[in-house]
Amino acid sequence: MLNYRNELDKMPSYDGVEKDYRIKMNANESTMNLPPTVEERVMNRLALVTLNRYPNEEYYSLTNQLAKNFGVESNQVILGGGSSEIIEKVFHAFGGAGRKIVYPQPSFSMYKIYAKAAEAEGIPFALNDKFDLDVDAFIKTVQETGANLAVVCNPNNPTGNALTVAQIEKIVASIDCAFLVDEAYVEFYGQSAVKLVGKYRNLMIARTFSKAYGLAGARVGYMIAQSEVTRMVNKTFMPYHMNKLSLVAADIVYQMRDEFVPRIQMMIAERKRMATRLKELGGMEIFPSETNFLLIRLEEAAALREYLERLDIGIRYFSSGAAGLENCLRISMGTRTENDEVFAAIKNFSEGIR
Amino acid sequence: MLNYRNELDKMPSYDGVEKDYRIKMNANESTMNLPPTVEERVMNRLALVTLNRYPNEEYYSLTNQLAKNFGVESNQVILGGGSSEIIEKVFHAFGGAGRKIVYPQPSFSMYKIYAKAAEAEGIPFALNDKFDLDVDAFIKTVQETGANLAVVCNPNNPTGNALTVAQIEKIVASIDCAFLVDEAYVEFYGQSAVKLVGKYRNLMIARTFSKAYGLAGARVGYMIAQSEVTRMVNKTFMPYHMNKLSLVAADIVYQMRDEFVPRIQMMIAERKRMATRLKELGGMEIFPSETNFLLIRLEEAAALREYLERLDIGIRYFSSGAAGLENCLRISMGTRTENDEVFAAIKNFSEGIR
Repeated sequence: MLNYRNELDKMPSYDGVEKDYRIKMNANESTMNLPPTVEERVMNRLALVTLNRYPNEEYYSLTNQLAKNFGVESNQVILGGGSSEIIEKVFHAFGGAGRKIVYPQPSFSMYKIYAKAAEAEGIPFALNDKFDLDVDAFIKTVQETGANLAVVCNPNNPTGNALTVAQIEKIVASIDCAFLVDEAYVEFYGQSAVKLVGKYRNLMIARTFSKAYGLAGARVGYMIAQSEVTRMVNKTFMPYHMNKLSLVAADIVYQMRDEFVPRIQMMIAERKRMATRLKELGGMEIFPSETNFLLIRLEEAAALREYLERLDIGIRYFSSGAAGLENCLRISMGTRTENDEVFAAIKNFSEGIR
Repeated sequence: MLNYRNELDKMPSYDGVEKDYRIKMNANESTMNLPPTVEERVMNRLALVTLNRYPNEEYYSLTNQLAKNFGVESNQVILGGGSSEIIEKVFHAFGGAGRKIVYPQPSFSMYKIYAKAAEAEGIPFALNDKFDLDVDAFIKTVQETGANLAVVCNPNNPTGNALTVAQIEKIVASIDCAFLVDEAYVEFYGQSAVKLVGKYRNLMIARTFSKAYGLAGARVGYMIAQSEVTRMVNKTFMPYHMNKLSLVAADIVYQMRDEFVPRIQMMIAERKRMATRLKELGGMEIFPSETNFLLIRLEEAAALREYLERLDIGIRYFSSGAAGLENCLRISMGTRTENDEVFAAIKNFSEGIR
């Protein structure tokens, strides 16, 4: 074997084609492709792209637009390949040997892996049995471990619940180290900590076009922070890391983001409707959600997942190895029709086991 | 200041919009956008992309196609955001504290930066005054420094000259460490070391769609190596690092790669024609090239670059800080019309200074 980087052999590999379900509710994607009016403009714009030239002003067109909307300077915005790449690079920027990164558990499962990739020590902070984050205890953990970076996902994936902006502010004001708020699902929640960026030099907000804006396939996310922070985090990105096609698609989508408001509202309404129906059905715990998905817990989780799998319905199952998520299933919201079919399937399953 | 990763402050930053020249010959891009028949199929395929879903089979469709063409297994192919990202990740995979990476100088200027980003020690190996690489001395340097990774760019950017496949084989057979051959310009040369991959467990070939295939804006490159190597290098890539739009564009382009043969031949013919004319003009050194660009050296390089700049013609100037490239200019080949205009400008400039 060649002499690879230390610990590289212990990193996980990502490959294998994912199953393409008839009803796909396992990845918290938007269940609908772009609204037709948006898609038409995206396609018209894509036809004008000079693919033969390296990306250039396309990057700045989008950062300018985002900056204007959030009332910050353009140099306070960084684009990445989904918020995933933003998180990866932030972890790298504050990582390295001997550095500690604190993140909630259960939360986005990649935090652990990004910490490892950054050669930092990941320190999971346990949520309570209702999946709430004890803010004071979290602050204490960050301080006492001497962490270099603290992270929360707000609203939290896969639990669905959220901290208030006041709670976020309490954390950021109480810790000295860098603090990343991953707001991948914030459009379904409506309360963002981005307004705190001007006040706190250690605050970073990560956002994505993959969820509410239906661009998971284009891989576009962004980060907002003070310019001193973006200047440093930017150094972890190589030139031309964003491609023109995704940049112009996201640019058009963001210009037309009002078109997404009705479907965001619909997802919220569907989540509420599904939560109510599942509660009425009984036999399971439904966790509060401020996102486009629901987390449920029932003793027969593994069997229900298999039952849905046979109907070609994909939902996310957390094996018993996922700390705190024993017997939990995460169901992304689909269209009303899809949700009705999934609900009927869960109902059938429930009646069968009683 | 927050507590950033060690040495991060010493990394360069990439920002600022690049100048968009009337005749752009500074980045070795394809001067033409996709052939119309290819563009039409790319656009038709892009219209079918389900942007709301995370990338999935699109990745494997392209790796399968590449694997089939090169007679290797699909798991021997890795895709990245241009060969740039391939190089970045290979450097990371073989980098880390105390590791050494040997690369030629002058060559692709990013090797030095990728080595630094990988927290490895970059060891430049000087080409001779004709920009030829002394194969025996290179092997000796790799061995004596105990390097963990050796790199060559073949044909070499920005010098244009190339090693034979026999020379590449001599290197790879003589060293024990990993060896990366960056073949970004190989389509203009026609001699690839990819056929050696089956024979040498330490060989990696990096390729790109950015040059001959005119997809610089899409950011797609690939690597071919033995499966043990791709398995390990793959661990440095996070899930969903490639986007669907670029993947399907590259997939169509590769299916239709025969359409690119005439323009590749035209670029080669134009390079030869320009080299001949510039030699006839005299007053400068023209270096042999197997690429889509020419490197020239003349005492008045800085003045010529400024002269062309005023005509809104962009070429690449290497400041005196670039070791070995004093007074050198790199000119990417354009269309015949563009090349004629640039030649006329250089001729005017030359006549003016005599």
